[in-house]
Amino acid sequence: MTSYDPNNVFAKILRGELPSQTVYEDERTIAIMDIMPRADGHALVIPKAPSRTFLDMAPEDIAAVYRTVQTVARAAKTAFAADGITIQQFNEAAGGQVVFHTHVHVLPRKAGVPLRPHTGEMAAKEVLEAHAAKLKDALAKAG
Amino acid sequence: MTSYDPNNVFAKILRGELPSQTVYEDERTIAIMDIMPRADGHALVIPKAPSRTFLDMAPEDIAAVYRTVQTVARAAKTAFAADGITIQQFNEAAGGQVVFHTHVHVLPRKAGVPLRPHTGEMAAKEVLEAHAAKLKDALAKAG
Repeated sequence: MTSYDPNNVFAKILRGELPSQTVYEDERTIAIMDIMPRADGHALVIPKAPSRTFLDMAPEDIAAVYRTVQTVARAAKTAFAADGITIQQFNEAAGGQVVFHTHVHVLPRKAGVPLRPHTGEMAAKEVLEAHAAKLKDALAKAG
Repeated sequence: MTSYDPNNVFAKILRGELPSQTVYEDERTIAIMDIMPRADGHALVIPKAPSRTFLDMAPEDIAAVYRTVQTVARAAKTAFAADGITIQQFNEAAGGQVVFHTHVHVLPRKAGVPLRPHTGEMAAKEVLEAHAAKLKDALAKAG
Protein backbone atom coordinates (compact mmCIF):
# COMPACT_ATOMS: atom_id res chain seq x y z
CA MET A 1 0.00 0.00 0.00
CA THR A 2 1.43 3.39 -1.05
CA SER A 3 0.87 6.24 1.35
CA TYR A 4 -1.80 8.94 1.17
CA ASP A 5 -0.70 12.42 0.10
CA PRO A 6 -2.97 14.99 1.83
CA ASN A 7 -2.15 17.57 -0.86
CA ASN A 8 -4.14 15.85 -3.61
CA VAL A 9 -6.84 17.87 -5.40
CA PHE A 10 -9.80 16.16 -3.71
CA ALA A 11 -8.32 16.62 -0.22
CA LYS A 12 -8.00 20.33 -1.07
CA ILE A 13 -11.62 20.45 -2.25
CA LEU A 14 -12.74 18.67 0.96
CA ARG A 15 -10.83 21.28 3.03
CA GLY A 16 -12.36 24.14 0.99
CA GLU A 17 -8.97 25.16 -0.41
CA LEU A 18 -10.09 24.60 -4.00
CA PRO A 19 -13.51 25.33 -5.54
CA SER A 20 -15.86 22.63 -6.84
CA GLN A 21 -19.37 22.23 -8.17
CA THR A 22 -20.70 20.25 -5.22
CA VAL A 23 -24.12 18.68 -5.83
CA TYR A 24 -24.50 16.50 -2.71
CA GLU A 25 -23.04 16.19 0.77
CA ASP A 26 -23.68 13.98 3.79
CA GLU A 27 -21.73 12.92 6.88
CA ARG A 28 -19.25 10.69 5.04
CA THR A 29 -19.38 11.68 1.35
CA ILE A 30 -19.60 14.49 -1.19
CA ALA A 31 -20.52 14.44 -4.89
CA ILE A 32 -19.06 16.98 -7.31
CA MET A 33 -19.01 17.55 -11.07
CA ASP A 34 -15.93 16.17 -12.86
CA ILE A 35 -14.22 19.20 -14.42
CA MET A 36 -13.10 17.06 -17.40
CA PRO A 37 -16.42 15.31 -18.12
CA ARG A 38 -16.34 12.24 -20.36
CA ALA A 39 -20.15 12.52 -20.65
CA ASP A 40 -22.61 15.33 -19.88
CA GLY A 41 -23.37 15.16 -16.16
CA HIS A 42 -20.23 13.17 -15.27
CA ALA A 43 -20.07 13.33 -11.45
CA LEU A 44 -17.63 12.04 -8.83
CA VAL A 45 -18.50 10.60 -5.42
CA ILE A 46 -15.74 11.12 -2.87
CA PRO A 47 -15.43 9.79 0.70
CA LYS A 48 -14.50 12.46 3.26
CA ALA A 49 -12.17 10.06 5.09
CA PRO A 50 -8.70 9.94 3.53
CA SER A 51 -7.79 6.81 1.55
CA ARG A 52 -5.48 6.42 -1.42
CA THR A 53 -7.54 3.69 -3.09
CA PHE A 54 -10.73 1.70 -2.61
CA LEU A 55 -8.58 -1.18 -1.34
CA ASP A 56 -7.71 0.89 1.77
CA MET A 57 -11.25 2.00 2.65
CA ALA A 58 -13.10 1.22 5.89
CA PRO A 59 -16.33 -0.84 5.47
CA GLU A 60 -18.58 1.97 6.74
CA ASP A 61 -17.11 4.38 4.17
CA ILE A 62 -17.54 1.82 1.38
CA ALA A 63 -21.22 1.47 2.28
CA ALA A 64 -21.68 5.25 2.49
CA VAL A 65 -19.88 5.98 -0.80
CA TYR A 66 -21.88 3.47 -2.81
CA ARG A 67 -25.17 4.58 -1.23
CA THR A 68 -24.30 8.08 -2.48
CA VAL A 69 -23.33 6.63 -5.88
CA GLN A 70 -26.80 5.11 -6.12
CA THR A 71 -28.47 8.39 -5.08
CA VAL A 72 -26.47 10.36 -7.65
CA ALA A 73 -26.93 7.70 -10.37
CA ARG A 74 -30.72 7.72 -9.94
CA ALA A 75 -30.83 11.53 -10.04
CA ALA A 76 -28.46 11.67 -13.04
CA LYS A 77 -30.67 9.24 -14.97
CA THR A 78 -33.57 11.68 -14.57
CA ALA A 79 -31.59 14.93 -14.88
CA PHE A 80 -29.85 13.97 -18.13
CA ALA A 81 -32.55 11.63 -19.52
CA ALA A 82 -29.89 8.94 -19.55
CA ASP A 83 -30.49 5.52 -21.13
CA GLY A 84 -27.89 3.96 -18.85
CA ILE A 85 -25.28 4.70 -16.18
CA THR A 86 -21.64 3.61 -16.24
CA ILE A 87 -19.88 3.47 -12.87
CA GLN A 88 -16.07 3.32 -12.78
CA GLN A 89 -13.56 3.31 -9.96
CA PHE A 90 -9.81 3.32 -10.68
CA ASN A 91 -7.05 2.21 -8.31
CA GLU A 92 -3.41 3.15 -8.85
CA ALA A 93 -2.08 4.59 -12.14
CA ALA A 94 -2.13 1.14 -13.80
CA GLY A 95 -5.80 0.91 -12.87
CA GLY A 96 -6.59 4.33 -14.39
CA GLN A 97 -6.34 6.51 -11.25
CA VAL A 98 -5.19 10.12 -11.70
CA VAL A 99 -6.04 11.74 -8.34
CA PHE A 100 -4.88 9.65 -5.39
CA HIS A 101 -7.87 10.05 -3.08
CA THR A 102 -10.47 7.31 -3.67
CA HIS A 103 -13.36 8.43 -5.90
CA VAL A 104 -16.12 6.88 -8.00
CA HIS A 105 -17.12 8.09 -11.48
CA VAL A 106 -20.86 8.25 -12.27
CA LEU A 107 -21.40 8.64 -16.03
CA PRO A 108 -24.86 9.21 -17.55
CA ARG A 109 -24.98 7.43 -20.92
CA LYS A 110 -27.04 7.79 -24.08
CA ALA A 111 -27.64 4.85 -26.42
CA GLY A 112 -24.99 4.83 -29.15
CA VAL A 113 -22.89 7.66 -27.67
CA PRO A 114 -19.40 6.53 -26.59
CA LEU A 115 -17.61 8.13 -23.65
CA ARG A 116 -15.46 11.08 -24.71
CA PRO A 117 -11.71 10.41 -24.47
CA HIS A 118 -9.64 11.81 -21.59
CA THR A 119 -8.39 14.99 -23.24
CA GLY A 120 -7.14 16.74 -20.11
CA GLU A 121 -9.25 19.74 -21.20
CA MET A 122 -11.52 21.40 -18.65
CA ALA A 123 -15.17 22.02 -19.52
CA ALA A 124 -16.42 25.64 -19.51
CA LYS A 125 -17.51 26.83 -16.06
CA GLU A 126 -21.02 27.71 -17.32
CA VAL A 127 -21.48 24.20 -18.72
CA LEU A 128 -20.47 22.58 -15.42
CA GLU A 129 -22.70 24.99 -13.48
CA ALA A 130 -25.67 24.18 -15.71
CA HIS A 131 -25.11 20.42 -15.28
CA ALA A 132 -24.65 20.81 -11.52
CA ALA A 133 -27.93 22.77 -11.32
CA LYS A 134 -29.81 20.04 -13.23
CA LEU A 135 -28.38 17.31 -11.01
CA LYS A 136 -29.07 19.23 -7.77
CA ASP A 137 -32.63 19.81 -8.91
CA ALA A 138 -33.15 16.09 -9.54
CA LEU A 139 -31.54 15.24 -6.18
CA ALA A 140 -33.83 17.71 -4.38
CA LYS A 141 -36.92 16.26 -6.09
CA ALA A 142 -35.85 12.72 -5.15
CA GLY A 143 -35.77 13.92 -1.53
CA MET B 1 -37.24 0.79 -14.14
CA THR B 2 -37.33 -2.19 -16.53
CA SER B 3 -38.29 -5.50 -15.01
CA TYR B 4 -35.98 -8.28 -13.85
CA ASP B 5 -35.82 -11.43 -16.02
CA PRO B 6 -35.12 -14.44 -13.75
CA ASN B 7 -33.75 -16.39 -16.74
CA ASN B 8 -30.57 -14.32 -17.09
CA VAL B 9 -27.23 -16.16 -16.97
CA PHE B 10 -26.27 -15.01 -13.44
CA ALA B 11 -29.64 -16.01 -11.99
CA LYS B 12 -29.06 -19.47 -13.51
CA ILE B 13 -25.57 -19.62 -12.00
CA LEU B 14 -26.99 -18.57 -8.60
CA ARG B 15 -29.59 -21.36 -8.86
CA GLY B 16 -26.91 -23.89 -9.84
CA GLU B 17 -28.44 -24.39 -13.30
CA LEU B 18 -25.25 -23.24 -15.05
CA PRO B 19 -21.63 -23.91 -14.04
CA SER B 20 -19.21 -21.19 -12.92
CA GLN B 21 -15.73 -20.80 -11.47
CA THR B 22 -16.85 -19.53 -8.08
CA VAL B 23 -14.01 -18.11 -5.96
CA TYR B 24 -15.95 -16.59 -3.04
CA GLU B 25 -19.38 -16.84 -1.43
CA ASP B 26 -21.05 -15.28 1.60
CA GLU B 27 -24.63 -14.72 2.74
CA ARG B 28 -25.42 -11.98 0.20
CA THR B 29 -22.81 -12.28 -2.59
CA ILE B 30 -20.75 -14.56 -4.81
CA ALA B 31 -17.62 -13.89 -6.87
CA ILE B 32 -16.92 -15.82 -10.06
CA MET B 33 -14.41 -15.66 -12.93
CA ASP B 34 -15.62 -13.74 -16.01
CA ILE B 35 -15.66 -16.30 -18.85
CA MET B 36 -14.66 -13.56 -21.34
CA PRO B 37 -11.86 -11.96 -19.31
CA ARG B 38 -10.65 -8.52 -20.42
CA ALA B 39 -7.58 -9.02 -18.17
CA ASP B 40 -6.06 -12.08 -16.50
CA GLY B 41 -7.96 -12.67 -13.27
CA HIS B 42 -11.05 -10.67 -14.34
CA ALA B 43 -13.69 -11.53 -11.71
CA LEU B 44 -17.33 -10.58 -11.18
CA VAL B 45 -19.05 -9.87 -7.87
CA ILE B 46 -22.76 -10.66 -7.95
CA PRO B 47 -25.45 -10.02 -5.32
CA LYS B 48 -27.65 -13.04 -4.59
CA ALA B 49 -30.76 -10.85 -4.36
CA PRO B 50 -32.33 -10.21 -7.76
CA SER B 51 -31.92 -6.69 -9.21
CA ARG B 52 -31.70 -5.60 -12.82
CA THR B 53 -29.27 -2.75 -12.16
CA PHE B 54 -27.35 -1.12 -9.31
CA LEU B 55 -30.00 1.62 -9.28
CA ASP B 56 -32.56 -0.93 -7.99
CA MET B 57 -30.43 -2.46 -5.21
CA ALA B 58 -31.26 -2.42 -1.47
CA PRO B 59 -28.73 -0.57 0.74
CA GLU B 60 -27.66 -3.72 2.63
CA ASP B 61 -26.90 -5.48 -0.66
CA ILE B 62 -24.92 -2.47 -1.92
CA ALA B 63 -22.79 -2.57 1.24
CA ALA B 64 -22.31 -6.35 0.98
CA VAL B 65 -21.43 -6.32 -2.73
CA TYR B 66 -18.78 -3.62 -2.39
CA ARG B 67 -17.28 -5.25 0.72
CA THR B 68 -16.86 -8.38 -1.41
CA VAL B 69 -15.45 -6.25 -4.25
CA GLN B 70 -12.80 -4.96 -1.83
CA THR B 71 -12.01 -8.49 -0.59
CA VAL B 72 -11.67 -9.78 -4.16
CA ALA B 73 -9.70 -6.71 -5.33
CA ARG B 74 -7.16 -7.09 -2.51
CA ALA B 75 -6.73 -10.81 -3.21
CA ALA B 76 -6.50 -10.21 -6.98
CA LYS B 77 -3.74 -7.62 -6.46
CA THR B 78 -1.68 -10.31 -4.71
CA ALA B 79 -2.71 -13.29 -6.86
CA PHE B 80 -1.93 -11.61 -10.17
CA ALA B 81 0.85 -9.26 -8.95
CA ALA B 82 -1.33 -6.41 -10.22
CA ASP B 83 -0.08 -2.81 -10.34
CA GLY B 84 -3.64 -1.52 -10.11
CA ILE B 85 -7.29 -2.56 -10.06
CA THR B 86 -10.06 -1.23 -12.31
CA ILE B 87 -13.61 -1.59 -11.01
CA GLN B 88 -16.50 -1.18 -13.44
CA GLN B 89 -20.25 -1.52 -13.06
CA PHE B 90 -22.56 -1.12 -16.07
CA ASN B 91 -26.27 -0.29 -15.97
CA GLU B 92 -28.57 -0.85 -18.96
CA ALA B 93 -27.27 -1.54 -22.50
CA ALA B 94 -26.37 2.15 -23.02
CA GLY B 95 -24.26 1.93 -19.86
CA GLY B 96 -22.43 -1.19 -21.10
CA GLN B 97 -24.54 -3.90 -19.39
CA VAL B 98 -24.83 -7.25 -21.16
CA VAL B 99 -26.31 -9.53 -18.47
CA PHE B 100 -29.28 -7.97 -16.69
CA HIS B 101 -28.57 -9.01 -13.12
CA THR B 102 -26.43 -6.40 -11.32
CA HIS B 103 -22.72 -7.28 -11.22
CA VAL B 104 -19.39 -5.57 -10.61
CA HIS B 105 -16.24 -6.17 -12.70
CA VAL B 106 -12.92 -6.46 -10.82
CA LEU B 107 -10.00 -6.17 -13.25
CA PRO B 108 -6.38 -6.69 -12.16
CA ARG B 109 -4.17 -4.32 -14.19
CA LYS B 110 -0.50 -4.24 -15.18
CA ALA B 111 1.27 -0.96 -15.94
CA GLY B 112 1.11 -0.22 -19.68
CA VAL B 113 -1.25 -3.12 -20.50
CA PRO B 114 -4.65 -1.98 -21.84
CA LEU B 115 -7.81 -3.97 -21.20
CA ARG B 116 -8.48 -6.50 -23.94
CA PRO B 117 -11.49 -5.63 -26.14
CA HIS B 118 -14.84 -7.41 -25.69
CA THR B 119 -14.44 -10.11 -28.32
CA GLY B 120 -17.31 -12.34 -27.22
CA GLU B 121 -14.81 -15.21 -27.15
CA MET B 122 -14.69 -17.48 -24.10
CA ALA B 123 -11.35 -18.18 -22.44
CA ALA B 124 -10.17 -21.81 -22.28
CA LYS B 125 -11.54 -23.72 -19.29
CA GLU B 126 -8.01 -24.59 -18.04
CA VAL B 127 -7.02 -20.91 -18.08
CA LEU B 128 -10.09 -19.88 -16.07
CA GLU B 129 -9.54 -22.76 -13.63
CA ALA B 130 -5.90 -21.76 -13.11
CA HIS B 131 -6.88 -18.13 -12.47
CA ALA B 132 -9.68 -19.19 -10.12
CA ALA B 133 -7.23 -21.37 -8.17
CA LYS B 134 -4.76 -18.47 -7.79
CA LEU B 135 -7.50 -16.11 -6.63
CA LYS B 136 -8.99 -18.65 -4.19
CA ASP B 137 -5.53 -19.27 -2.75
CA ALA B 138 -5.00 -15.53 -2.16
CA LEU B 139 -8.50 -15.23 -0.64
CA ALA B 140 -7.80 -18.14 1.72
CA LYS B 141 -4.47 -16.63 2.81
CA ALA B 142 -6.13 -13.25 3.44
CA GLY B 143 -8.52 -15.08 5.79
